[in-house]
Amino acid sequence: MKIAFIGLGNMGSPMASNLVKAGHNVTVFDLVESAMQALESEGAGRADSAQAATQGADVVISMLPAGVHVKSLYLGRDGAPGLLEALEDDASNITPLIVDASTISPEDARTVAAAAREKGFTWLDAPVSGGVGGAKAGALTFIVGGSAEGFEQAKPVLDVMGKNVFHAGENGAGQVAKICNNMLLGILMSGTAEALALGVKNGMDPAVLSEIMKQSSGGNWALNGYNPWPGVMEGAAAGRDYEGGFLTDLMAKDLGLAWELALGSKSTVPMGSQARNLFALHSAQGNGGLDFSSIQKLYREGE
Amino acid sequence: MKIAFIGLGNMGSPMASNLVKAGHNVTVFDLVESAMQALESEGAGRADSAQAATQGADVVISMLPAGVHVKSLYLGRDGAPGLLEALEDDASNITPLIVDASTISPEDARTVAAAAREKGFTWLDAPVSGGVGGAKAGALTFIVGGSAEGFEQAKPVLDVMGKNVFHAGENGAGQVAKICNNMLLGILMSGTAEALALGVKNGMDPAVLSEIMKQSSGGNWALNGYNPWPGVMEGAAAGRDYEGGFLTDLMAKDLGLAWELALGSKSTVPMGSQARNLFALHSAQGNGGLDFSSIQKLYREGE
Repeated sequence: MKIAFIGLGNMGSPMASNLVKAGHNVTVFDLVESAMQALESEGAGRADSAQAATQGADVVISMLPAGVHVKSLYLGRDGAPGLLEALEDDASNITPLIVDASTISPEDARTVAAAAREKGFTWLDAPVSGGVGGAKAGALTFIVGGSAEGFEQAKPVLDVMGKNVFHAGENGAGQVAKICNNMLLGILMSGTAEALALGVKNGMDPAVLSEIMKQSSGGNWALNGYNPWPGVMEGAAAGRDYEGGFLTDLMAKDLGLAWELALGSKSTVPMGSQARNLFALHSAQGNGGLDFSSIQKLYREGE
Repeated sequence: MKIAFIGLGNMGSPMASNLVKAGHNVTVFDLVESAMQALESEGAGRADSAQAATQGADVVISMLPAGVHVKSLYLGRDGAPGLLEALEDDASNITPLIVDASTISPEDARTVAAAAREKGFTWLDAPVSGGVGGAKAGALTFIVGGSAEGFEQAKPVLDVMGKNVFHAGENGAGQVAKICNNMLLGILMSGTAEALALGVKNGMDPAVLSEIMKQSSGGNWALNGYNPWPGVMEGAAAGRDYEGGFLTDLMAKDLGLAWELALGSKSTVPMGSQARNLFALHSAQGNGGLDFSSIQKLYREGE
């Protein structure tokens, strides 16, 4: 299958790499020259523009930092035409399927999807969870919003990069589900860090308390595989001074998206709101570039 | 084994019943006559006072509503002697093991444990989780604080009533671990309810969103077996108008114990604090007698 891949950041590079390894004909584009060179050395083709990368493609995949980049790419900016227009004008194109794996607001996703639909293209929002490790291992979770037909069409390609591929609903639902999940994750992680700190301050061993809560009604994803207390769990970010992993600033970004979603829908999110403030505070204290489980440090100052 | 069981409430009655079924010689005492009659009909002996119940007992187990009751029972009140004094005076007694399964403050637990130790008795704090369903099924989790020897001695008896029996540490640690766990549970449940409500307000199907989060990084105990959204999970309290189960008022009590623990240890608990306020508000709105997963209703008012 001929695949165009746009956006070779920390996530996009290993995702594109897995598509190459699976034998697909992948053409990449990124603004960073070295990222394209790396993919080229693995067997991908490279193009000088997003438009050029998508010529004759069956599937277009994009993985960009935020909504503003996704809108620029597809809808254009400052009078320059976007990719949707270029795809329409490309006589060699056979109406490709478009999958955007970026995490953006549901509103932005619906805007771009509607513009694509007008031109007869199927556009899916397919944000991922699983981080850089999941991307490298081809073990990401894709949460897809868009038509059922589009989902079925995309699934074999997403299966190459992911372990779980969910259909969340219509366009925007992929982003809504991802935002809800990551809000809950922010709540779980800060709550788990808080419970561990409370126990330790009252004489408990963090490993014993972790084991008890994991097997009791406090059990959650953080305790199962991402324990925030240093030394409790082998391989967790806490054991390497919180280097790498899913960054505090990305969690703060996702919790900010949850605020926007709550504002737009007149929802109340007291727990997510508290978590957002904690991660934003933690970032303001200089921890934005650490793994988000470093929120544990916020509870340990002055110990 | 000769066991005295004091306190036949919603939890104590099925716990005592399981001890009888396992062939132990159980003598019960409660202030409520009908509760004693029910246990008597199952084969337990009954006594006219806590003191009488414990005569010649190998093990004394108590299951009472709050710290004030536990202190009254063991230490006495208004000049009347407590059970510790009575046990000391009882010539027929062979220094019984004492297990208090009530959920009380760690401070109260340490106070009573110290008084017991002075008289040469082993006293364990062994709060449970698992609720009435767990008590009936003999599937409770016991979280035990006290000496390692006392723990080993108590374990075979606790195994009759529970599925998991943890040794958390010294006296008081059982209560600390339970409070930390239940604070985290309150955070998980309110956070899960909040994430579901945010998704549904933005067009998601609650069952689809639940499944996605359960298998992603939002996964937690509530999503696994106690989903708060009506109709998503068979057998959950949400499906029977939140009748029965673990009551809102009990969750509010446990979150209040977390506040006390945080105050005493100068800990910061922003997430647990928010959860406590939500459950207290939910109780103030008349939902104290409903299962705690009814916190979902707080997010659905005005829908």
